[in-house]
Amino acid sequence: MMSLNRIPENPIITIDDVKPSRPDTEVICAFNSAAAQVGDETVLLIRVAEKFINDDANVLSVPVYEPVDGVYQMVRKDLNVPELKAAGYNFDDPRVVEAPSARDGLAVVYLSSLSHLRVARSKDGIHFDIEEKPFIEPTTEYEAWGCEDPRLTYLDGIYYINYTAVSPLGVATMLATTKDFVTYEKHGLIFAPENRNVCFFPRKVNGKYLAFNRPAPEGIGTPNIWLAESNDMLHWGNQKFFYSVQKDGWETGRIGGGFHPIETEKGWLFIYHAADISNRYCLGAFLLDKNDPLKIIAKSEKPILEPELEYETAGFFGGVVFTCGGYLQDDMLYVYYGVADENMALATIKLDDLFAELGV
Amino acid sequence: MMSLNRIPENPIITIDDVKPSRPDTEVICAFNSAAAQVGDETVLLIRVAEKFINDDANVLSVPVYEPVDGVYQMVRKDLNVPELKAAGYNFDDPRVVEAPSARDGLAVVYLSSLSHLRVARSKDGIHFDIEEKPFIEPTTEYEAWGCEDPRLTYLDGIYYINYTAVSPLGVATMLATTKDFVTYEKHGLIFAPENRNVCFFPRKVNGKYLAFNRPAPEGIGTPNIWLAESNDMLHWGNQKFFYSVQKDGWETGRIGGGFHPIETEKGWLFIYHAADISNRYCLGAFLLDKNDPLKIIAKSEKPILEPELEYETAGFFGGVVFTCGGYLQDDMLYVYYGVADENMALATIKLDDLFAELGV
Repeated sequence: MMSLNRIPENPIITIDDVKPSRPDTEVICAFNSAAAQVGDETVLLIRVAEKFINDDANVLSVPVYEPVDGVYQMVRKDLNVPELKAAGYNFDDPRVVEAPSARDGLAVVYLSSLSHLRVARSKDGIHFDIEEKPFIEPTTEYEAWGCEDPRLTYLDGIYYINYTAVSPLGVATMLATTKDFVTYEKHGLIFAPENRNVCFFPRKVNGKYLAFNRPAPEGIGTPNIWLAESNDMLHWGNQKFFYSVQKDGWETGRIGGGFHPIETEKGWLFIYHAADISNRYCLGAFLLDKNDPLKIIAKSEKPILEPELEYETAGFFGGVVFTCGGYLQDDMLYVYYGVADENMALATIKLDDLFAELGV
Repeated sequence: MMSLNRIPENPIITIDDVKPSRPDTEVICAFNSAAAQVGDETVLLIRVAEKFINDDANVLSVPVYEPVDGVYQMVRKDLNVPELKAAGYNFDDPRVVEAPSARDGLAVVYLSSLSHLRVARSKDGIHFDIEEKPFIEPTTEYEAWGCEDPRLTYLDGIYYINYTAVSPLGVATMLATTKDFVTYEKHGLIFAPENRNVCFFPRKVNGKYLAFNRPAPEGIGTPNIWLAESNDMLHWGNQKFFYSVQKDGWETGRIGGGFHPIETEKGWLFIYHAADISNRYCLGAFLLDKNDPLKIIAKSEKPILEPELEYETAGFFGGVVFTCGGYLQDDMLYVYYGVADENMALATIKLDDLFAELGV
C-alpha cells in the first residue's frame, strides 16, 4: 500500500539543534511542530521541552511556570525522590510525577519537563534556522505546565495559533494570533479541559468558522473528534460529533486532528493521528465533503504513516508519529511530524497518490 | 449554624405524583428540577426518569432513544442478565450497565432508566400540577440516553433552558429556549463532553453573557467549575477557572453550579453542590463580586444543606441533596432540590440570614 514517503534527511530537527532557553536547562524534546508557508519560507513552531540539569540521582528537579515578581518564569522545584517514593509518589512514567490522591488514586502533580514554542525558518522546508529564544511561553495559570502541540492556520490575513495549555487545572486549548512571528497576542482559552488537537478550517464553511476539537471526558464516552462552529474564532458552539475511537484496529486508544483541513478539488483533506491501547501512534487521512465536512467521503483504512524506522520507534517516548503541521505545495502534501516524542521529521506524498490510496 | 429551612410539606413531588409517559414504563425518579417564576406561577421543569416495566428477574429491559421511522422514541432492549454477567458485564450500579472494554476496563453501555423534562406549575410554590406528557424529550443522537438536570434562566425576555444531553458519546450541555413552556427550540450543544451543571447569569456582565460550567477531564485535573463568556448565548469562549474540587472536607469528590446566580445588593449569590468521595452531595453558597464574578467575596465553609432526613438519605441513590433551580422572592431564597436522586423537596432561607451565615 502507498503511504507517506519519508525524506532521506530525516530526522530534520533533533534536540541537538535547539539551544536551551537558559543556562541551567537542557532541551529533551523538539517535536510536534506547527507548520505554515510564509512568503518563500517554511515556518515551524516547534514544541521545545526543557528540563533542569541535575546529576543527583536522588533529586528530581521539576519545573513549574510561576509568577516571579509578576512575570511568569520557569521555576525549579527540587524533589527528594526516595522520600517521596516512601510517601507513595510514583515516578514510573518519565514524563510525570504522581502523588497519592484520595479522589483519583494517583494524580499528576508535576511534569518532568515543560514546553514552550520556538520559531524555525527554512527556504527548502528541510534545513531550518531555529531561533535561540522562545516565541510563545507560559504567561497564565492555564500554562503553568507548558505550551504544547501548536497548530498554525492562515485565515483572513492572520496566522491563528492554537496550542495545548497544560496546568494542574487540566489540558485546555489556548488561542493566539500573529502577523509576523515576532509579536503575538493571546486570546484566552477557547475550550475548557480536557480538549486538545484543535484544527481550524482555513476558511468559513456555510458562513461559519469551523474547528475540529478533541474533548476527553472523565466518564461516559471516549476521546472523540468533534466539530464546533464560530462567528468570530473566539467563541465556539454547536458542537457536533465527527469520529470516535474505534473498537478494533489501530484507533482503539486515542484519536485527534493533525492540522487544518486542506481544500482540494475532491473535498477537504484532513490528516489525523490515532493510537491503539498500547500508545502506538500512527497517522491517517480523511476526505470530507466540501460543504458538509461531517460527511466522510473516504478514509484511510490503514495508517498512511506508522512508526517503523529507528528514529520513530526509539526515543523519549518511542513508537510515536504525530503531526501538528503540514501544507499542500504544487500538488505535493508536506507532513511535518514529531517522532518518538523527541525530534522532527518530514514525509510527503503526491496528492494524486493519496487520493488513489483513499480510493477517490 | 444557620442553614436552609426545609418546608414541612417535603417531599413536595414524589414519583407517585408523575404519570408515566407511556403504558409500558414506570416513573422511578422525579427530581433535579429547574425552577422559575412565570407570572404568578412557579414553573418547574422536572427531570423524570422512566424505566420499562419488566418482572422477569433474568431480563433487564433497558431503554434507548432511537429514531423509529425518523422520529426519536424510547425503544426497549431486553438484556439476558445471566448471559451477559457470564460475558463480563457488570450490573452492580443500579443506574447503568457496564460491558468489558479493552480501552477502559469497563464502559457504560446502557442506562437502566432514561430522563425527559416535564413541566409542573404551582400557585403557592409547594403544590404542583404536573403535566401528563413530556415537554422536552430526546430528539438527537446526543440525547440517546436522555435529557437530565435542566436549568432555567430568564434573560432578554426568553427562558433559556440548558440541560445535560447524555448519550454513548458522552455527557454534554444542550441549549433550548422557550417563551411559553408549550413550544421550544433546541440550539445544539454549547459545550462538548464532558460538561454539565451549566448556570447562566441572568444578565450581561461587562457586556458579556456568562456561564458557569463544569467540565470533567479524563486526565490531568479534577471536575472544576469554570466561567465562560459569550456574545450570543450560543457560542462560548474565554474559559476561566473559578473553583476546584478540594483536598479535604465535603467538596473532595465533585462540585458544580446549582442554578443561575442571583443579583443582590451585596453581590451575586450562587448556590452550588459538592460531593465528597463517598458521593454524599450537599449544597453550598458563594457570594461573588458584582463586576468580577470570579472574585469570591464569601463562601459557606460548611454545607447550607446536607442529606439528613429520611427522604434525603434513603431512595434511588441515597445521601443526595442536589439543586437545579431556585429564585429570590421578597427577600426569601427558594431552593428546589432533588432528594436521593428520586423526589423533589423545597428549602428556603431569608436573604439576611444567609448573608449572616456567609459573614457579610
